Amino acid sequence: MSLPVIGLPEIAAIATPEVIFGAVKEALIAHAEGRTSVPPPMVLEFPDHAGDCHVKAGHVGGSAHFAVKIASTFASVNNGLILVIDATAGVPAAVLADEGMLTAWRTAAAGALITHAMTPPGIDEVAVLGTGEQALLQVTWLRKLRPINRIRVWGRRPEAAERLCQAFENEGLEARADALEGGGAPCVITTTAARSPLPTEAFRNALHVTGIGTDMPGKHELPVELFADALVVTDDHDQCLHHGDFGNAVRAGIIRPNADHAVGAVLRDGPAVLRDGRPARGTRSPVRSTRSIADLTGVGATDAAVASAVVGNRFSTLVE
Amino acid sequence: MSLPVIGLPEIAAIATPEVIFGAVKEALIAHAEGRTSVPPPMVLEFPDHAGDCHVKAGHVGGSAHFAVKIASTFASVNNGLILVIDATAGVPAAVLADEGMLTAWRTAAAGALITHAMTPPGIDEVAVLGTGEQALLQVTWLRKLRPINRIRVWGRRPEAAERLCQAFENEGLEARADALEGGGAPCVITTTAARSPLPTEAFRNALHVTGIGTDMPGKHELPVELFADALVVTDDHDQCLHHGDFGNAVRAGIIRPNADHAVGAVLRDGPAVLRDGRPARGTRSPVRSTRSIADLTGVGATDAAVASAVVGNRFSTLVE
Repeated sequence: MSLPVIGLPEIAAIATPEVIFGAVKEALIAHAEGRTSVPPPMVLEFPDHAGDCHVKAGHVGGSAHFAVKIASTFASVNNGLILVIDATAGVPAAVLADEGMLTAWRTAAAGALITHAMTPPGIDEVAVLGTGEQALLQVTWLRKLRPINRIRVWGRRPEAAERLCQAFENEGLEARADALEGGGAPCVITTTAARSPLPTEAFRNALHVTGIGTDMPGKHELPVELFADALVVTDDHDQCLHHGDFGNAVRAGIIRPNADHAVGAVLRDGPAVLRDGRPARGTRSPVRSTRSIADLTGVGATDAAVASAVVGNRFSTLVE
Repeated sequence: MSLPVIGLPEIAAIATPEVIFGAVKEALIAHAEGRTSVPPPMVLEFPDHAGDCHVKAGHVGGSAHFAVKIASTFASVNNGLILVIDATAGVPAAVLADEGMLTAWRTAAAGALITHAMTPPGIDEVAVLGTGEQALLQVTWLRKLRPINRIRVWGRRPEAAERLCQAFENEGLEARADALEGGGAPCVITTTAARSPLPTEAFRNALHVTGIGTDMPGKHELPVELFADALVVTDDHDQCLHHGDFGNAVRAGIIRPNADHAVGAVLRDGPAVLRDGRPARGTRSPVRSTRSIADLTGVGATDAAVASAVVGNRFSTLVE
């Protein structure tokens, strides 16, 4: 059996932003329409080595491949790979030794797609809370979809915030660590590992908020009050209710558990449908909110979609 | 990242019966002692292509690697591989492209180990019901542990039974398709995909029965009456209760749900402890049965153990 192991340099050459955006958008729409298959993940724990391993699988109905992603974290060091399998014959097609980058890119693409779709046109000032890899990626990927002129940053550690500003400046963007000043920015993206709500000052002017940090129980980024009267979209209803900030707001009694819409529906139809006429899930009246919130917890089908796209594009390139 | 993909010829050279027997025995003992980690498997279904994919993971506490096994069946064709990961650092160590053979061998080894341990010494006549790959392997692996002089075979299709007899004859064994005659053999191994009990005539003389065919709900090989007063061992208590023949007998009211012992305990201590003095689980009196039954449904930790053994032996060979 010859099973190609595709390393990060080759993956990066194939997985252009166009490829990733296309795969993620299609997967989120399919997920909203119930056309994906995502079994509950497996977790193995290795307490003696401060390690755990998460195994996730997913398939977007009709696509050529499905994927099994193995992601381990031992003593804070991430590792893993994605196995891509032919979905018509069950034959393993390739191992993507992506060093976790496909997960980072699909997260960036999902965030950028929904942030762009829900932030009013013309807004070019964005605040990002958090100073890690996703803080940089969420903005640089959003910038591929719309012009961004001003970045406002906040992090718990001022030196990390300054470092992130410098990284943005290196990309030709104006960036300052002032995301909490003057009521904050009209578009806010949260990328932290917070377990208690971030400062409310950051959200006072927000027309749209995208939260990507609440990926497991116990996480909490967005103040629950933000959800009052907001137009809320979730990437996976059950998952966001279980451990997203949407769930935190529901448990606080701020919003009803059936008040969210699907991210994929907005990517397919645009946000105007939800805002102007279509009633929110389980209600009879249209949403009249001025603030929107996207709660993203990460959908396994997007892993399958980007992995399948890499393998599909690789083979189509080889054939040419 | 350099990830070796090890094919079947190299795996077969490393995974000698000695290696497989050692790994499986250790894993079953560890499993009996609660020292294994086996999360619930994942299943993806592909009805358009008559396909499914089962993802299993497991770890034997303290061993150098854990494993994630991906096994797919599309239109009755099996495929898959095993990913082996370092259990101290989370780094993928190798992909075993074993074409399903490690699963076949670990199943053969588990069956042979417990059949040998529980069948009285000196018995060299064995009946095997079923005519597939495991029918051959269960006997040939048992023969590595004790002398076998006479094989008795039964299958629903007489031509398949004759073919299996011929395969045994080719290995120098006396074999006849007469497993139902004269009350059957003193040692019986069932390897079928039966969904209703096999003929009772096959078990009338049985001192020990090993059943390996009930690997999912709906399967049923052993007549439930066999379990009355029998000494019963299971490879995984919950799994055998859920979908093994032990569970079928419990649901029929023939045996209590806590009457089984662990296969691993017998492999560690020998069957005499259970027979002569130690009370069965949940009882106060010793077992006084003359018939024993081993119900094997397949333990994920044995997959991890054989995969880890292959990788460990490969690297130790390379170092020498």
